[in-house]
This record gives sequence, C-alpha cells and structure tokens, in this order.
Amino acid sequence: MPDWVEMTTTEGPTRGSREAETGADAAGPAETAPKKGRPGYDQQSVLDVAVAAFIDHGYDATSMGLLAGRLGLSKAAIYHHFPAKTELLRAALDQALDGLEGVLTEDGATHGSAEERLSHVLRGAVHVLVEKLPYVTLLLRVRGNTEVERNALDRRREFDKAVTDLVVAARDDGTLRDDIDPRVTTRLLFGMINSIVEWYRPGGPETADQLAADVLAVALDGLRTQRSRK
Amino acid sequence: MPDWVEMTTTEGPTRGSREAETGADAAGPAETAPKKGRPGYDQQSVLDVAVAAFIDHGYDATSMGLLAGRLGLSKAAIYHHFPAKTELLRAALDQALDGLEGVLTEDGATHGSAEERLSHVLRGAVHVLVEKLPYVTLLLRVRGNTEVERNALDRRREFDKAVTDLVVAARDDGTLRDDIDPRVTTRLLFGMINSIVEWYRPGGPETADQLAADVLAVALDGLRTQRSRK
Repeated sequence: MPDWVEMTTTEGPTRGSREAETGADAAGPAETAPKKGRPGYDQQSVLDVAVAAFIDHGYDATSMGLLAGRLGLSKAAIYHHFPAKTELLRAALDQALDGLEGVLTEDGATHGSAEERLSHVLRGAVHVLVEKLPYVTLLLRVRGNTEVERNALDRRREFDKAVTDLVVAARDDGTLRDDIDPRVTTRLLFGMINSIVEWYRPGGPETADQLAADVLAVALDGLRTQRSRK
Repeated sequence: MPDWVEMTTTEGPTRGSREAETGADAAGPAETAPKKGRPGYDQQSVLDVAVAAFIDHGYDATSMGLLAGRLGLSKAAIYHHFPAKTELLRAALDQALDGLEGVLTEDGATHGSAEERLSHVLRGAVHVLVEKLPYVTLLLRVRGNTEVERNALDRRREFDKAVTDLVVAARDDGTLRDDIDPRVTTRLLFGMINSIVEWYRPGGPETADQLAADVLAVALDGLRTQRSRK
C-alpha cells in the first residue's frame, strides 16, 4: 500500500495529540515568552503555525495565547505580524483563494477550447490544493460565521461560478455531455478535487501532476475501459 | 437556478443562527423543564435534534443543557432515552454506518459482475447519504477523538476497503481502467459522493435516483461526449 494515501479518514492529528507532544496547551502566561535559541519567525511561518492550530482546534477555540505557546513567542510578537486573530484568518484564506483565483487568469484558462480551459483550471486547482494543503483545508471548513469568512465564501462562490461557466461552454460546443446539470457537474468535480485535502499526504511518490491526471481521467473519460462501454 | 443546489458553501445554518431563532442557548436551567403542549419526543426525534446540534456547534461544544433547551425537555428526560452524550453520538454514527454497511449486503452488491456490484454500492451509498443526510454529515466530520469516534472510523475504513476490493475486481476483469491506483479511485469516487452532504438540499426536483445516476455517469463514462473523445 502506498504511503501517500492515508487510509485513515482523520484530517491531521486528532485534537490533543499535538499538544501531548509539545505541551503547548499547558504553557501558562509565564511560559509564552520567547525561548532562547528558538529560531525567529517571519510572517509566513507565524501564519503556517496558526493555520495548523486552526485546523487542530477550530478557529474559535484557538486563542492568541495558545498560538503564542505553540510558537514560543509572546502574544505581542504575534501582534507585531498580525494585529488581530481575524487578520491571521484573513491572510490564510487569502493565500488559498489567491492561489485558486490565480489559476483562472493563467493563459491556459483564457485561451483554447472550453474543454482545454476547463482541464487547465481543474489541473491547476489540484496543484493549488497540494501546494497549499493546510490553507485550502482551512478554506473548505469556513462556515461564514464572521465577515472575513463570509467574504471568503463569496470568493469561493465566484470561483465555482467561473468553473460552471466553463462546463456550460464545453457542453454548448458539444464536448461535454448535456444530461447533467452543469452546476451538479461542477459540484461533483470539486467533490473529487477537494477530497484530496482529506487523504493526500505530500512527499509521497504521487506527484501533483499525477494526481491531476487521475482526476482529469476519471472526470472526462470515466473509469470504464473502451471495450467495456455499452 | 434549481433550488435544490445550494450555491453557498456553508453546511447548514451558521453557528448561532438557529439559536437566534429559538433562543435555546439562552435558556437557563429553569427553562429546560418540559413545556406544556410541546409534543413528546421518541428516541429517534431526540436523536434528530441532537445530530442537528452536533452539526451546528460541534460535538464537544454541545452540552446536554443545550440539547435540553433545544428540545424543551429536562436533562433527565434526555438521559431517559440516552444515558450519556456519547451514547447519542454512538447511536447517530451507527445509523449512518448501518445504512452504508447495509448496502454491501444487498443482493445487488453480492451478485453479478464486479462492475455491477460496484455500481450498486455507489448508487446505494448516494441513497443513504440523501436519506440520512445529517447523520452522514456527522460521520464525515468524525476525527477520532474518542473511543466511539475511533470505532466509527474503523468501520468507515472497512467500508472503503470493501469498495476498493470491488474496484480491484472490476479492474482485474478488464472493465475498469488499470492506470489509476484503486485506492485513489475509491477516494475520488467517495470525494464526489460525500460532497453531496455539502450542497444537496432534500425536497427539490432532483431525486436520489437522479443524483446517483449523475455520479455513476461521471464516474464510469466521464463527462466527454462520444464524438469528442480522443
């Protein structure tokens, strides 16, 4: 069995397991001061740690004190990078959304047949998921409880709509089947793609390219072999 | 736009919206006594309300007091049906898993070609999702933090393995393509199917049958029309 397919259905460490390793949750205020010899954090590293904490504990349950404990920084040091917890969330969701939206403006998404453009966008989305795995995981968990989250949901909807438009165009030019509602098609396509955050573990032999090829093969040509088609 | 495709990416009401309607969270102990004229709850109705609360608030954040408030029952009345909160979770996850596992033992899943059996199981899984939408939603959020959750994850893994075995059998008899790892295939198939809990709203014109047909059409035959295949 290949290591890069995680057969468990958990997403990342279960709650508490990471704390059990580091004891970060147990760190009181006195222990959140910078530790000697700990490497400095730039803005991106602070964000990486915050995103991991949001995934493990949920955004609401992650306090700045908990983050400070994980980073071994003072809260003031975090505020130096991000003036509020919500700014950490905004920056994290921006990275996921900027990645996805960026795919839509690439040459491959704006030139060629509708099917070529759709294929480019699906392939690009898989790459963004693999490269920004925790960031997209966080994005997919957003429920719209705050202004920052609602804004992220709006941007996701716009992205979905752009993909649906490509599905419609490829249906209208006769390339894609016309017996499935294009919005259902888009949902099923991103059901496949988004599931990657639940089971793919980076660093294995399956590259993002291979994974994207698998998704496109299933979505466009289906699993049936030519000779078994009815 | 059809009503039954929820274009938002939220799952159910955002946190707090339901409380805002009912004021249940604000109900103090004195208000959790049974209300006059309120219909009685049987075990299944109590479970339905508990599952909705677990989805809205998360299992950990849902107290028996909150449930009592939502139900308009005393905590003792809930304990009469379920002796502990974890028993509510166990019963809820059992209903989702019993449904999925039940599909595997049906005639269509045990007789016929591997492809026919696989198709039956995928179709049956879509039906279970639609009929048990909140229960499967809860199952898909389980992270393995407690014994009950770990047991549920074990059963999900066994179910996935049974589906993967069917994919392997259909590949070996030449029906399904052999250039994708069967476990990746299973993941992508259930990525599509499980996404249904995020966007499907029951009661619309799209029946579970139609939805299952859409999933099978994409998965087995792909989106490309015959004349556009390369």
